[in-house]
Parts: sequence; C-alpha cells; structure tokens
Amino acid sequence: MLSHDTNANGPKAPGRRIRYELLTIGDELLLGLTVNGHLEFIGAQLGARGIELRRNVTVTDDAEDIAQQFRESWERTDVVIATGGLGPTCDDRTREAMASVLGQKLVFDPAIEQHIRDRFALFGRKMTSNNLKQAMRFEKGDVLQNANGTAPGLWVEQDGKVLCMLPGPPNELQPMFTEQVLPRLARLGLVLDREAYVQLRTAGVGESLLETRLQPIFDRHGSKLGIAFCAHSGHVDCRLSSPGGEISFAEVEAIAAECADLLREDFVCYGNDSLAKVCADLLRSQEKTLSVAETATGGLLANAFTGICGAAKFFSGGCVCYSNDSTMQLLDVPECLLMQHGAVSAEAAVAMATGAAEKLGADYGLAITGFAGPCGGSNENPVGTMHLALHAPQGVWSRKLSFPGPRATIKRRAVNSALDWLRRELVRAQTGAVSVSKQQGVMQ
Amino acid sequence: MLSHDTNANGPKAPGRRIRYELLTIGDELLLGLTVNGHLEFIGAQLGARGIELRRNVTVTDDAEDIAQQFRESWERTDVVIATGGLGPTCDDRTREAMASVLGQKLVFDPAIEQHIRDRFALFGRKMTSNNLKQAMRFEKGDVLQNANGTAPGLWVEQDGKVLCMLPGPPNELQPMFTEQVLPRLARLGLVLDREAYVQLRTAGVGESLLETRLQPIFDRHGSKLGIAFCAHSGHVDCRLSSPGGEISFAEVEAIAAECADLLREDFVCYGNDSLAKVCADLLRSQEKTLSVAETATGGLLANAFTGICGAAKFFSGGCVCYSNDSTMQLLDVPECLLMQHGAVSAEAAVAMATGAAEKLGADYGLAITGFAGPCGGSNENPVGTMHLALHAPQGVWSRKLSFPGPRATIKRRAVNSALDWLRRELVRAQTGAVSVSKQQGVMQ
Repeated sequence: MLSHDTNANGPKAPGRRIRYELLTIGDELLLGLTVNGHLEFIGAQLGARGIELRRNVTVTDDAEDIAQQFRESWERTDVVIATGGLGPTCDDRTREAMASVLGQKLVFDPAIEQHIRDRFALFGRKMTSNNLKQAMRFEKGDVLQNANGTAPGLWVEQDGKVLCMLPGPPNELQPMFTEQVLPRLARLGLVLDREAYVQLRTAGVGESLLETRLQPIFDRHGSKLGIAFCAHSGHVDCRLSSPGGEISFAEVEAIAAECADLLREDFVCYGNDSLAKVCADLLRSQEKTLSVAETATGGLLANAFTGICGAAKFFSGGCVCYSNDSTMQLLDVPECLLMQHGAVSAEAAVAMATGAAEKLGADYGLAITGFAGPCGGSNENPVGTMHLALHAPQGVWSRKLSFPGPRATIKRRAVNSALDWLRRELVRAQTGAVSVSKQQGVMQ
Repeated sequence: MLSHDTNANGPKAPGRRIRYELLTIGDELLLGLTVNGHLEFIGAQLGARGIELRRNVTVTDDAEDIAQQFRESWERTDVVIATGGLGPTCDDRTREAMASVLGQKLVFDPAIEQHIRDRFALFGRKMTSNNLKQAMRFEKGDVLQNANGTAPGLWVEQDGKVLCMLPGPPNELQPMFTEQVLPRLARLGLVLDREAYVQLRTAGVGESLLETRLQPIFDRHGSKLGIAFCAHSGHVDCRLSSPGGEISFAEVEAIAAECADLLREDFVCYGNDSLAKVCADLLRSQEKTLSVAETATGGLLANAFTGICGAAKFFSGGCVCYSNDSTMQLLDVPECLLMQHGAVSAEAAVAMATGAAEKLGADYGLAITGFAGPCGGSNENPVGTMHLALHAPQGVWSRKLSFPGPRATIKRRAVNSALDWLRRELVRAQTGAVSVSKQQGVMQ
C-alpha cells in the first residue's frame, strides 16, 4: 500500500500513512436484509488509488450509536467516509449525530431545497414536508450534488481531517464517489491522482503456478516492484505497483506488458473485464457470431453473454435443453445418439454445439451438458461432470471436465471454463495460431 | 427486537438487552476483493432468533488492529463473534490477538491435530508443518468441530461473556454456526430456542398498501404484536412477532395465517422460498410441466428454474432468442408475424409462449420479450418495456410492463414479474378459481 510520501499538498504531513475508516449506517445491514456492498465498492475504489481502508464499522440507525462510533473513528483517522441515514424519515439521524460530534450547526440550504423540488417535479410526485430535512447541511462544509436522488452528499474539512457523508442507495453513492469524492481527495493529496497499480487478468493457471512463471521478470526488480495476486472464480488477477515510488508508473506498465507477453493466451486482459466481455469484444472485432446450448448450466451461459449491452450484434441465441425431447426438437440432435450415448456425453455435447451453430446460423456454437447435482449423476458421469463442446469454423471439439462443490458453484465453474475455452480459440483465430483444441484432439 | 426478558438461564441477568458484536477479519474485505457475506448470514440468523446484532467491525489482518478492536468490543458487549484469520499462514493472527486480550494461554490440542491429519489424508494431500498452528486452542475454552475444513472454531466463556471464533470460508462457517453455535447460545439463554417471528412472503403489493390491507388484523392486537416489513426485488416480507412475550408464539402463527387468508393470491409462502421455488412446488404437485422463451432477459428466466435441484421433473427447457432467425427456427414463430409486429410485441410474446409449450411438449409456456437497454428500444417500446405471455392449458394471455433502472435491474424485474404471474395462475388452477388473466383480457 502506498503512503503518499510524495504528495504534500493535502492537510496531512507527508511521510506517514493516511488512515481511512468507512462507517456504514443502517439496521438493514445488521439484520442481514441487505448486503454491505458499500464496503466492497469503496474498498476497491480506494485500493485502486493506493489507499488501504483501515476499518469498516457498521452501526444501527440509533443516533447515540452513530455519534459514539463517529467520535472514535474521527479521533484516530484522517478521513471518515459515512454512508446511509441521509433520507427524509425519522430513522435518518446521521446528520444530527455527526453535527453534535463536530460541534457544528446544521443550516438550511435553499439551493438543496430547489434540487429536491425539481426532482419531485421531474417524476410528477408530490413532495412531503419531511423531505426538507434533506436540505440541511453543515454550516462549515460543502455539498456533493446528487444527480440520481434527493439527498445530497455532505463534505466537511475540519481539524486537518475530512468527513464525507454519502447517501445509501448504490446508484446515488457510486457516481458521487467516483465523480466528486475521489477528485476532491486527490486535490488534498489524500489519494493518488492516478491508478495505483496495473492489473493483469489471467485464466487457466492457478495462483502459485502463475507466480512461478512470472518470477524471472519479478526477480529483475526486487522489492521495488509491488506484487499482489488474487484468485477469483474463473480467473486470477495479478496487480503490479511501485510501493516506494522507485519505479515510474510507465515502467510498471512496461513490466506488466512483458508479463502479458510471457503468459500468451493465459493473459485475458488488463483491468476488470469479464471473460464473457472479452469474448464479446473478440467476436465483434472478427465479425463472428455465437450461439449456445446448455443442459445443467440452464441459462447461465446464455445470460453471461446477454448481460452485455448490444449482445445481439454477436449473439444469435441459446437453447436450454432440460429433456431429451427438447434437445431433439430445438437442436435436431438425433434420438438414436441420445439413446446410445446419453444426454450427458461428449457425443451429445458435440451434437448440441453443432446444432446450435447450424440451426441459428452462427459461426461458433458452444455447448455444455452435465450433472450439476446434488441429485442425479451416473457411475460414468458423477455429479460435477461436465462435457463441453465447441463448434468453430475450423472444426468441432469436446472436452470432459469435473467440478466439485454445490450446485450453484458447479454451474458457475462450468460456464467459466466454457467461456475461457471460447476466448482462447478466438485469440488463436485472430493471431492465426494453430488451435490447441485441434492439437490435443477430442479430450483435454 | 426481543430482549429475552423471559429467559434467565444464561450468564446474563434477565431483563436487559443482550449485546452482540460481529468482528470480521481480513484485508481482502477492506480491499473490496470479497463481499462481507458473513454480516448478511450471521445478522439474519441472529435476527431470526430475536437478537439484533449491534455492530459489525471489519479490521485488517494486523494483529494490533485485531487486538485493539476486540478489546473495545469485549468491554461493551455480551457476545463477540469473530470470523476469519484462523488459517495456517503467517497472516492468520486472530488466535494470538484474542488470547492476549483475554489473558489466556494457547495450548496444543492433539485431537485437533488428528482431525487435520485425517482431512489431508482424505484428500490425499501432504500436510505442511504450518498447518499445526490450527491445532492451538484456548487453555480454558472449547473447540467447535469443522466438518468441511481443517481449522476448528473456538469457543470461550469468560467474565460472564462469550467469544466465538469461526473460520472464514462460508461453507465451513455456516453449518458450524447453525449446528453448533446457535444451540450453545440458546442453552445459555443468549438467543431464543425457536424462531423469533413468522415471516409472510408476499408479491404484487407495495409495502404501504400491504400495511393498509393488514391493518384491521394488526389493530386487534395493538402494541403486543411486533410488525416489520421489508421490501425486496420482486417481493415484500412481513414479519410478525411477540416482542414482549404477551402473545404466545402459537397465537402469532394464527395471526399470520389470518393475514395469509386475507391476502389470497398476494400471499406467496411462509419463510424464504423464492418465487421460482414456489412455482416449482406448484408445478410438481399438479404434475404439470413448463418451458420458457425469452429475448432480453437472455437466460435469466430459465436459470431461475434450473437453479432448483430436480428441475427436470417439471422444466422441459428454454429458448434464448437473440435474433429473428432464432425465434423463427427454435419456436416456429412465423416470419410475417415478426415483420408485421416486431420481435418486441404482444403478438411475438404470445407466439413465443405457445411455440415454447408446443415445441417442447409442456403444459405451460412462459415468454418474455423486450428491451433491457441501455441501448436499443423504439418510440412505441422504449428501453424497459417488456411484453410477457403465458400459454396455459386454459388459454394464452399477454401483458405489457415497463421497468426503470439499469440493464441488470430491468432483466431481474421482468423475470420476477413473469414468475409471479405464473405462480398466480398455478394457484388458481389448484383452487379452481377463474383465471384473473382471463378476466382482465390481454392487457393488465
């Protein structure tokens, strides 16, 4: 983590680590009714700017709890970010609690009132008087505009520290954070004014093997290069940085490019794009189309592609076959094939992939058939077995994989494997390399 | 929230509220790499047993941070639940930090060592010596067995308080919590030994209208009846309880049954079953089958059903149509219909629902076609417009709906609406009531 030793513009003396705490407010979080997504979002946003969030405290809507916790956090930190409790109802007590700790007055702001009235007018709704509570701001403080809701964010610089209060709904909080809070923090030298690291996304290689392969590159830079790995479902990320500032950011980018070259097809992309998004970009740039067919993953594979805006440009459609009858009817798979080999077999997967491509007139057909469990399965194909098949302009191949875990995990892993296989074939098609699927025959 | 005034068996004096704090430990949470799902799970589990979690603090893996936070939490609460940091590596420092605050020794437990060795043997892996760190427990404390991993949970009763330490992986933590932690807490009178409330799940009615309709029933019981509403995407839950213990739990159940009767088809189920699960149970009990067809929701509707184990019993399959060609090929929808009305139209939805049912030989066909945005849409059918159609043994109907929000939200809402529509028709088929779809004609 960076300590921002190089930036002395902020209210903090340079050379020491800046402490951030996140205060998430709301009974619904503690009752388990809502996931605390703010921690994930703000933690990642700060991490990308070189700050490790030091602590997150979730408290009830009780004014005393809020004030007590804020007092503690304010004493020991440089920046407190608070979320929630800015609404119009009587259980929204965050403003008052913070004001009492800061010894500040809350004042009525006619500009905020106008914003609230405008929003109600826009949606043709009637404003009730309790909404005017949201027009209160700190006497010595700023307002953060809310383009997606009524409650503005509030910003206070006091005692050499910053308090930033954000509304709870994620669609209001997130753009406010990236568009207004981060630039303000950067101006004060409290976050980096650029990304803190370069992220390489990889697939098909475990964390430890990945480290071993990249070690020769890392060794050349010693401790000057910051390296962090993070394994996810379906991919592993590697983040490179310059924690002490001894390597320039351009040099970190060059090292990352060297790693990407070395990893060849195991390198997916820089940043955070999903495997499906990377496949989509490759299909679009090659002007190719795709259709899918699936049994056990039951719509999850299709949904990975249809989650992308404009998917109709490359995605023709998909079939979810949950009976032999549907496989025969939708994909023209012959009954005798299903009778002889079963619906969970390499032969069925190949017939489904080809059927999907031919029936829907697509260049590529991707199929998954298997047993997601916990019930079902056979001796030959126990729960977790998945046959994948890919029909491509160059040929058609299948592979048999096996995944442990509960139903939802098996479904997700099978989809990730299918996406990564398609991605590799599309990369090879682009570079003119020989298909690895072809080299290795039917089974891999 | 209950205060357990009635139970004096525990170490706490009766008549005061029991304070719980959750301490979640791990850099990965604060860096936004992992969602803090423990808060959601444990908050909900405690809530169901009458306890409102008072605070959740997430700290780094730094031993000093852990110890400092635990000291604060231990002083002001009755029960501290801590998660994470029990692994075998050098950044797992939770045991030592807690021991220093409690003034306890850590001792080596040969029984835990045997458990760890057995698990490694089971998976045919080699145990490294650092794993033996996980065999340390508090000198004066108990061990919670871990059926799904190596690190046991740890349990300490000291100073009239309880500390419970749980491993971080959810598949290890969750069964340990429900099977071992809750029964122990109940024996000490620190949670109720039964559910704290009856939950009615409803759909199709907003929170405030729901309250208005149920108010006559609530009024008869005054403040003796605890009432809480919670709106989710697609359904609203209403929880009934007896906060002061003045109404017996059997009576609360009777009141809930009265509410369910009054709500008729707007009542979905008791507890937490999803709309898809309720539809699945209805289809299975009526021995009917279902197939689906979808454009914009792109596999999400099919996936709602295939997420249920044994779905092949009632679910025939689904088509994801992302081009006119696929709609024609897969569902035999005539080209002239698509040319005349467009793929996003009531006519197309009806043809898709009927095509899905007939082609796949199912009793019911459910279809969704629309624009999920943010790109696409037309003047007549702007982004967010969804045409739904239901082909049932009694007839076929369509309805046009409009949903605001980003792409993923529109997809989810459209699927929820379709599921609820199907559920209502299945309930009516079961009770022999006239289909409301039929009564109201094509548009609703």
